[in-house]
Amino acid sequence: MSVTIKDVAKKANVSYSTVSRILNNLPGYSEETKLKVEKVIEELGYQPNAIARGLIKQKTKTLGVLVPGVSDLFVSEILDGIEEQARIMGYNVMICKTKNRTKDYLQTLYENRVDGIIMVSVMLNEETYKEIVSKEIPVVNVAAKSNYSEIPFINIDEFKASYEAVTYLIDKGHQNIGMVSGTKGDNREKGYKLAMKNANLEIFENMIVYGDYHFESGISSMKKLLMYFPEMTAVFCVSDEMAAGVLSYLYQQKIRVPENISIIGFDNTSTAKKAIPPLTTVAQPLYAMGQSAVQLLVTPELINNKTFPHLIVERETVRKL
Amino acid sequence: MSVTIKDVAKKANVSYSTVSRILNNLPGYSEETKLKVEKVIEELGYQPNAIARGLIKQKTKTLGVLVPGVSDLFVSEILDGIEEQARIMGYNVMICKTKNRTKDYLQTLYENRVDGIIMVSVMLNEETYKEIVSKEIPVVNVAAKSNYSEIPFINIDEFKASYEAVTYLIDKGHQNIGMVSGTKGDNREKGYKLAMKNANLEIFENMIVYGDYHFESGISSMKKLLMYFPEMTAVFCVSDEMAAGVLSYLYQQKIRVPENISIIGFDNTSTAKKAIPPLTTVAQPLYAMGQSAVQLLVTPELINNKTFPHLIVERETVRKL
Repeated sequence: MSVTIKDVAKKANVSYSTVSRILNNLPGYSEETKLKVEKVIEELGYQPNAIARGLIKQKTKTLGVLVPGVSDLFVSEILDGIEEQARIMGYNVMICKTKNRTKDYLQTLYENRVDGIIMVSVMLNEETYKEIVSKEIPVVNVAAKSNYSEIPFINIDEFKASYEAVTYLIDKGHQNIGMVSGTKGDNREKGYKLAMKNANLEIFENMIVYGDYHFESGISSMKKLLMYFPEMTAVFCVSDEMAAGVLSYLYQQKIRVPENISIIGFDNTSTAKKAIPPLTTVAQPLYAMGQSAVQLLVTPELINNKTFPHLIVERETVRKL
Repeated sequence: MSVTIKDVAKKANVSYSTVSRILNNLPGYSEETKLKVEKVIEELGYQPNAIARGLIKQKTKTLGVLVPGVSDLFVSEILDGIEEQARIMGYNVMICKTKNRTKDYLQTLYENRVDGIIMVSVMLNEETYKEIVSKEIPVVNVAAKSNYSEIPFINIDEFKASYEAVTYLIDKGHQNIGMVSGTKGDNREKGYKLAMKNANLEIFENMIVYGDYHFESGISSMKKLLMYFPEMTAVFCVSDEMAAGVLSYLYQQKIRVPENISIIGFDNTSTAKKAIPPLTTVAQPLYAMGQSAVQLLVTPELINNKTFPHLIVERETVRKL
């Protein structure tokens, strides 16, 4: 029977995770521990290449990233995390902007024999999903809940994050809270609805409008909301880009934020800090999520938690009523 | 002697460019012309693969793009143009964010046998330059003047664009014009200086401050300018990101734009239209420049002009004095 990482850990009297970290040149142990583990590895004749899916298949030291047509800033912060972690672990990264060509680009990545594929916020269709499972290259989806359970994902708890964003507005005294939503019936919308319900606030149809997560749709959504729901004092936007569109429309209309209307966004991309006024928003730890995606591909045994913490970042667009 | 594209053009009684467009599935000819040219190609036994550097070497139908750590929005619009043109011409695109790893990533692209490489705003060092010329893969640099003349580039006339931006402010009655510059002595700074000189306006050292093209440096630069040069009525910023930082700082200081200070930016990325107030800026046609980069790699004979027109986009940050 071949020697396992557990045997090494036991004999060296360190944890499984420590051995794996040492094998993958990750930080988090003393030089002394490293020497001890390396000695045991040699004594037992352990073959480090067998520890992880990604490492078994390593050929090109290249990871492929598929990025759809979502907000570039959102993607860009995830990519920075991916790049940094890949660099630490000795991998190069090839990025493909897929738009509607996911299948084409998967093929390109397969032909280039990448060691693993990270999809950023990709919704898979049946055909593409089947193609992915038929290959033996590890895949992970970041910032999207996979619609197929076989594909691991890294995400925040979107339902809880939205619930807390809306509750934050309610705690500030707001009762007439509009929503600029993105996808009908998704977890962000469910979070809004439950928060309103738990505060005994009624929701009418005119209080929710839909955009496509981008700036321009924030403008048109706010225009609608102001017509449909003029009594509103606060708006929850499910992306910072749409919140920026909302701010832009309100500026045009000479409606002051937060004096007349409070706004909370979602994502905490660089748009939020650049907004005028700076935008209060729900932070997703995009950089860290990108880093973890690389770890999950290369050293899956080190990743315990794929749900990342969210956080409300208070800036200047929400006031107490 | 083998049949050339010129022979085809002559016999079909169409231009060289038309034949090349047809061969590369580009638009710009009638169905009738297409049929005629295809007939001549068959008659003469012309081998279309020989027409262009890129096409001669075509192996993988993949182009590599090297992107450094410049503003993501700036790069993103160039990338969209690259993607679209590549899609039309049947190529896939692999993007590498290089940061300080240009040489590593060049190697990765070579190993993946890309048919051509597009560098976005990359300043080459001697070593990397030598590596590029030693390989026989076509390369083009977009949105940067190549420091080595052997490498073709696609750019605007930065000197002229800056000259016109500053002249625009002068024509609006401004005389005390500060500059948030990026690179000491570059063409943008030279354009500013000549515009001031030609209007008989003196330039003092305290009127120019330096940032790194990013948002945060716009904030710190404006802070300095307000201290050093309190009499200024207008500021020329060499990137929209820095202009957004300037707007943010002025908002904090309750200094109104354009009532108290006028601002003009550079690039016309999506930051400009999203700014509050929307930013007047010098547009670079980034999308079209990205498209042309692909054409220059794949069908260099179709590209006559590598200098793109700039344009002042008037929004709401400049007022007449």
